Amino acid sequence: MDLNLVLKRIKPSEEEEKEMKDFIEKLIETSKKLSKEIKPIICGSVEKNTWLAKRYELDLFLLFNPNISKKQLEEKGLKIAKNIIKKLKGKYQIAFAEHPYLKGWVGKFQIDIVPCYDIKNPEKIKSAVDRTPHHVRFVKKNLKNPDEVRLLKQFCIANKCYGADVKTLGFSGYLCELLIIKYGSFMNCIKNASKWRAGHIITFGNLSKEDAKRKFKSPLIVIDPVDKNRNVGAAVSVEKFYKFVRACKDFIKNPKEEFFFKKLLKPYPTTKILKIIKRRDTRWYLIVFKRPKIIDDVLYPQMKRCCKAIKKMLTQNDFKILRSDFYCNKKCVLVFEMEIWKIPKISKKIGPDVYSKHAEEFLKHYKKEKVFIEDENWVVEVESKFTEVLEFLKDLFKKSKNSLLEKGIPNKIAPVIKNCKIFHGENVIKFIEKSPDFRVFLREYFEKDLNVV
Amino acid sequence: MDLNLVLKRIKPSEEEEKEMKDFIEKLIETSKKLSKEIKPIICGSVEKNTWLAKRYELDLFLLFNPNISKKQLEEKGLKIAKNIIKKLKGKYQIAFAEHPYLKGWVGKFQIDIVPCYDIKNPEKIKSAVDRTPHHVRFVKKNLKNPDEVRLLKQFCIANKCYGADVKTLGFSGYLCELLIIKYGSFMNCIKNASKWRAGHIITFGNLSKEDAKRKFKSPLIVIDPVDKNRNVGAAVSVEKFYKFVRACKDFIKNPKEEFFFKKLLKPYPTTKILKIIKRRDTRWYLIVFKRPKIIDDVLYPQMKRCCKAIKKMLTQNDFKILRSDFYCNKKCVLVFEMEIWKIPKISKKIGPDVYSKHAEEFLKHYKKEKVFIEDENWVVEVESKFTEVLEFLKDLFKKSKNSLLEKGIPNKIAPVIKNCKIFHGENVIKFIEKSPDFRVFLREYFEKDLNVV
Repeated sequence: MDLNLVLKRIKPSEEEEKEMKDFIEKLIETSKKLSKEIKPIICGSVEKNTWLAKRYELDLFLLFNPNISKKQLEEKGLKIAKNIIKKLKGKYQIAFAEHPYLKGWVGKFQIDIVPCYDIKNPEKIKSAVDRTPHHVRFVKKNLKNPDEVRLLKQFCIANKCYGADVKTLGFSGYLCELLIIKYGSFMNCIKNASKWRAGHIITFGNLSKEDAKRKFKSPLIVIDPVDKNRNVGAAVSVEKFYKFVRACKDFIKNPKEEFFFKKLLKPYPTTKILKIIKRRDTRWYLIVFKRPKIIDDVLYPQMKRCCKAIKKMLTQNDFKILRSDFYCNKKCVLVFEMEIWKIPKISKKIGPDVYSKHAEEFLKHYKKEKVFIEDENWVVEVESKFTEVLEFLKDLFKKSKNSLLEKGIPNKIAPVIKNCKIFHGENVIKFIEKSPDFRVFLREYFEKDLNVV
Repeated sequence: MDLNLVLKRIKPSEEEEKEMKDFIEKLIETSKKLSKEIKPIICGSVEKNTWLAKRYELDLFLLFNPNISKKQLEEKGLKIAKNIIKKLKGKYQIAFAEHPYLKGWVGKFQIDIVPCYDIKNPEKIKSAVDRTPHHVRFVKKNLKNPDEVRLLKQFCIANKCYGADVKTLGFSGYLCELLIIKYGSFMNCIKNASKWRAGHIITFGNLSKEDAKRKFKSPLIVIDPVDKNRNVGAAVSVEKFYKFVRACKDFIKNPKEEFFFKKLLKPYPTTKILKIIKRRDTRWYLIVFKRPKIIDDVLYPQMKRCCKAIKKMLTQNDFKILRSDFYCNKKCVLVFEMEIWKIPKISKKIGPDVYSKHAEEFLKHYKKEKVFIEDENWVVEVESKFTEVLEFLKDLFKKSKNSLLEKGIPNKIAPVIKNCKIFHGENVIKFIEKSPDFRVFLREYFEKDLNVV
């Protein structure tokens, strides 16, 4: 296949480039006029020439002298930023990362305005954002072929691996740029990545991989060339890592333009899903509740923790989960596919070895129960509090918010999950029928395959 | 309570003693007449004055000079033994332990005639039976109050702990004698034993307990005073050990004559059993087959191994056993009480950590399956071969004898278990109704309690 065909579709046109350039000029000019105290510079993909067509997004960094206080930096920075957007007749909103910054919209442009310190040595920065100008400098100096980055970014986007945000847990733009600097071209990067295994290490210059291995544990370790104590791949989850590796492998085997422009998955037809579910012979429990009014970056980690907390409780109650997952649109939907959803009233607790020093505690603890011995272990029969998953869930959501928090349900979820609807049995079928989103979710769920051998 | 009342019932009467004495005289006289080569001595409880009323059992040991061969010893020994019984107009049968010996019946007396070597140093014996005369000598020399042994033996009998045979796995007569030698009296023995914990060590003279601890692992370690390399308590199983400890504890709390003369357990009424089973909400599978024509000493260990083998297979197939057990009368009955007896078609195998060096093998092995990642582990969904216990059992017993042997079903069980009947569901209720033995078994099963705290 011809990668140039892809490039044609994703590279900004001359007209776009011109629009962008004009806008940047105006932005810098406005900034300089508004304050003598700062040095305004453009960061982000636009400055590095790796931006994608129709993505009118840019980062304006306001560099302050490091001798002002953080408080001053934040106050002055935000004030200048607001004035810039006002001057350009745009709209804005304050956003928060490690420090507050301004999100602005002017016409079709979206600008993040970030105040930071102008620090020469990137290993001595005061806040993560102070590092960004150094990244820009490094990329501009070392990246020979920005179009290759564009291909890699687009490949990541299509394969749902683009972005270091907590919802995606994938590859940042800077990470893509470093990979191209490392491997020289998109194709070479893909070829190499198709053989990656969790724990892969990439360094620049003559840094030791052994050091990196000792210092970081993550599926992809890319030592930041401007700061050897930072792993640029830190955000990449194991799942997204192997999703990317698998995509690379599949692309090499059968290179097609579709890998860059994946269409939205069509939902499975209900009949197909019912057939699959019948064959699996598992039981499904859906916990559906109103999406709390919080941004993805807060919602997704909380949903993940919520799912994990419920999973843990189900397991502790002797139920067995085949798989659990979740998705969010206007509603939040937790999905539990159960292998064991019904258990007898009696279950067995296996205690310590009869020769163990803990045997005595066990016998004391179950003084009122009948205990016996199995394979040299003390055992006791205990009554299960819940014999069906539904019973357990209903009881759980009856609890107070505080007691949900104690059980590991995160704070933004706890108040809304109390009013959830639980779908199970026949109701799951109804939910499947009426929810195309769930049918898309199930398609991904059933088709998921990360085998990279 | 008055232990003398117990003693009155279990101690041989003067008349019995006289009968026994006369019989022994005749036995020794006959033996001496029949061979000049041997020294006939009486061993066993009769000689040690610890025998129980109405138990007309004795051991006649034929001591040979150690310079004859084992083969000669066996041949000559058996020949003399047969002649003794013939002379006394009794019946006999050859039996086997480490070496062949003769079981004889003369009137109401049952005599084991055992050929052995006359070896002065018990630590240099050629066969286990050579040690017995030394045991007798030790007990006669050290036991001050044989009646106390009688109480202990009777206590063990009533509590199903008496006998070192593989069916009982309990306390031998010699062990009871040593315990009384150690503790001086029945009551003192019981008081001490009520506080025993698995791994209890008893030594005589100035032998080190540390040595014993290093050398033996069993719930009750009693170093044989005639051979420090032997543990007289080796046969005692952990279950029987704690059954005994528990009985001692109960007796001290509430000493009653019943502890020595437990009545046969009455079977639970069917209605009571059904109530219990309904409450437990477990599923029962009974495997019933004809008892193979073998002695208890062979049958019971094989039944135990058989039960364990099936348990292992059920577990490997993802079923979950609450309890398993067996009993034998004319039939052999294996009992499996299941916690999980039905599973979905799909189950999950959790593979290695994604960072492990074994990850690659796992991915290769499941190359054709869809794999994914859960909590940093590779996982794969696999199809269960059996989704119900009954399916599994039916398939198992269809297999050839050889393949049953391979799966750990012992050799005497394999041919008969193939023709077993499996009771489950409603049929279990029918079996309960028609089998009082099973109702007795279930009574013990449900009442079992070894808590000794």
